[in-house]
Amino acid sequence: MRELWDALLPLGRDPASGGYRRHGWDAAEAECRAWFRSAARDRGLTVEEDGNGNLWAWWGEPGGDAVVTGSHLDSVPDGGAYDGPLGVVSALAAVDLLRARGVRPRRPFAVAVFAEEEGSRFGIACLGSRLLAGRLDADHARALADRDGVTLERALSDAGADPAAIGLDHERLRRIGCFVELHVEQGRGLVDLDAPVGVGSASWAHGRWRFDFAGEANHAGTTRLADRRDPMLTFANTVLSARKKARQAGTVATVGRVEVTPDGTNAIPSLVRAWLDARAPDAPTLAEVVAATERAAHERGGRDGVDVTVTQESGTPETSFDAALVHRLAELLGGVPVLPTGAGHDAGVLATAGVPAAMLFVRNPTGVSHSPAEHADWSDCEAGAEALARVLEDLVA
Amino acid sequence: MRELWDALLPLGRDPASGGYRRHGWDAAEAECRAWFRSAARDRGLTVEEDGNGNLWAWWGEPGGDAVVTGSHLDSVPDGGAYDGPLGVVSALAAVDLLRARGVRPRRPFAVAVFAEEEGSRFGIACLGSRLLAGRLDADHARALADRDGVTLERALSDAGADPAAIGLDHERLRRIGCFVELHVEQGRGLVDLDAPVGVGSASWAHGRWRFDFAGEANHAGTTRLADRRDPMLTFANTVLSARKKARQAGTVATVGRVEVTPDGTNAIPSLVRAWLDARAPDAPTLAEVVAATERAAHERGGRDGVDVTVTQESGTPETSFDAALVHRLAELLGGVPVLPTGAGHDAGVLATAGVPAAMLFVRNPTGVSHSPAEHADWSDCEAGAEALARVLEDLVA
Repeated sequence: MRELWDALLPLGRDPASGGYRRHGWDAAEAECRAWFRSAARDRGLTVEEDGNGNLWAWWGEPGGDAVVTGSHLDSVPDGGAYDGPLGVVSALAAVDLLRARGVRPRRPFAVAVFAEEEGSRFGIACLGSRLLAGRLDADHARALADRDGVTLERALSDAGADPAAIGLDHERLRRIGCFVELHVEQGRGLVDLDAPVGVGSASWAHGRWRFDFAGEANHAGTTRLADRRDPMLTFANTVLSARKKARQAGTVATVGRVEVTPDGTNAIPSLVRAWLDARAPDAPTLAEVVAATERAAHERGGRDGVDVTVTQESGTPETSFDAALVHRLAELLGGVPVLPTGAGHDAGVLATAGVPAAMLFVRNPTGVSHSPAEHADWSDCEAGAEALARVLEDLVA
Repeated sequence: MRELWDALLPLGRDPASGGYRRHGWDAAEAECRAWFRSAARDRGLTVEEDGNGNLWAWWGEPGGDAVVTGSHLDSVPDGGAYDGPLGVVSALAAVDLLRARGVRPRRPFAVAVFAEEEGSRFGIACLGSRLLAGRLDADHARALADRDGVTLERALSDAGADPAAIGLDHERLRRIGCFVELHVEQGRGLVDLDAPVGVGSASWAHGRWRFDFAGEANHAGTTRLADRRDPMLTFANTVLSARKKARQAGTVATVGRVEVTPDGTNAIPSLVRAWLDARAPDAPTLAEVVAATERAAHERGGRDGVDVTVTQESGTPETSFDAALVHRLAELLGGVPVLPTGAGHDAGVLATAGVPAAMLFVRNPTGVSHSPAEHADWSDCEAGAEALARVLEDLVA
């Protein structure tokens, strides 16, 4: 397992921050895909790429009612080493463990790598699994553009893939008998419970909203305050409103990405564009927090002379993983903790499409994630791979 | 004059916004310099470039006690067509008018173009005139870096200039007997007074401060609000504080430029860096507004677990233009309005270095500046050039 990990570790790492920049269909992510293909081939697995950019490494013949495990290899900008890759490495390590124990799967078995899970390039999280599951319109997806204006359609073409092939993939979706995704925990649930491994029970409802605050560019020195239409003020007030509404509702809300036009020190901006990431235990609570934030933005915008436009870019309702599968996994692992998560995952997307899915979490000693400082103790990673192997051995029998 | 204007108009224009992106020593600014050299040559003027990147087009022999007019050709990102260029075009047009009237200057006369007045690339406004006047340390200036990490030293080398040559230029500074800069007004003073042209009396104190808000990158979904160190919150609160302090003091404060790290939708930022542009009628009031903003930032940062570092990047005290020159210009123009400005200008920098300096302002019908929507009526521009010619005719006699 260590060898797999060490080979993947340098790919797409930013030397300055120590974080990762592996984004869908970019050069670093392509290296990660090549690493996966090579590691799968070394294990005698047969790799296929589906029309949505997801990779499937089959142990034996592909087929229905398959046991599938895996995760993703892309990162947020300056992400950590574990988020995604730990699930892929553990899946391959679990294959090694099963082989060493002489296990021969009675059900079709595959390790999957889903594309652009973080949505860091095209703005929609779990892009590969959403397309596969028909949870995202293919035409809409092809037109998505990255920060440089490159569309997904173009990125796929440039990568040698066929943009016309994306979208709902009934056949591959129906093949998945169950999906188990191992992932580093992104909070401190397991630390507090003093457990190296746990089972995920549910994902919070979550979504992304783009707020466009449109004012009027003007001179920072000569424009009287009363004459200004400064969108930075409306934006700033909205950041604080979102936090306040989330706190009141017991949810979370984050503004992590901002674009300012023209972005000059001595110019009042004409436009501030910001993205709100909001999450809640259930969709109605989430809708309430976002609506309250929008109301506050419009109210303040009215006072600032700033037009506020809000566009929902993605949304996923709360997802309970398959109760029977969750119970079975927790039992198999000797009664490890069962806990929900605020993070979205491909397992959640597949669950909403009717696939029995569940997750294993590996303890994160600080809870830090989406950061170069993300960490997991290696012994916990090994415990995770061992737990995954135990679960898979039972599922493939 | 129209011909000069039309030839300059397309250079460095962004087709999408209609605004200008002419920044010190970039390709667009180089085109503007070439335009100036060619226009000066057409008029029989002799062009020299000083060690600080400023251009001087001499009518006759260079010499002491010279009458100098001019402005700058660079823009803020997405700036308007008039800010800077109108002063340069009007200076050349004034030469044509004087020639047509048979005027032969008795004093040395030059049209100057100062480098990087907006400071949009290297962060310090009036870079060329500040260096010339010894108001900026040359070593410090050489190490200034643009957004891509290119230093001024490197940019100068790449442009074929000698980075060692920048800094105080006693000889050229002493040559300037007086400096008159024509500029489009950047507020609505002349509109309110119903006058096409006015004379500038003073510049407000102004400066730029960089605020670094350092928190901790983390996952936007799984990190409890109580566990966050989110610098976006401290930043947002500081934007609103700066505005409030400025309003209370009767000054202006603007945040127009922001950098977020890592700038991912689903990641709490590790760092938000923002630039405060603040201006006030006098330096003590300015210092008070900025200090109050800093205090508010530190106070909020303490509550957010965010470290706040404030670095002053530039500062210029209030500048009264030469009283005798201001009076003379207003008289010569038949008693046009005399008004102060919140904007900084090369004329202000030269004034602080002891050069008798003054400005002419041309009416701006909307007051909008630092924006693609900046505008001046052509008849007002012609009135400006005519006023400049009248003033110069008197000064060179």
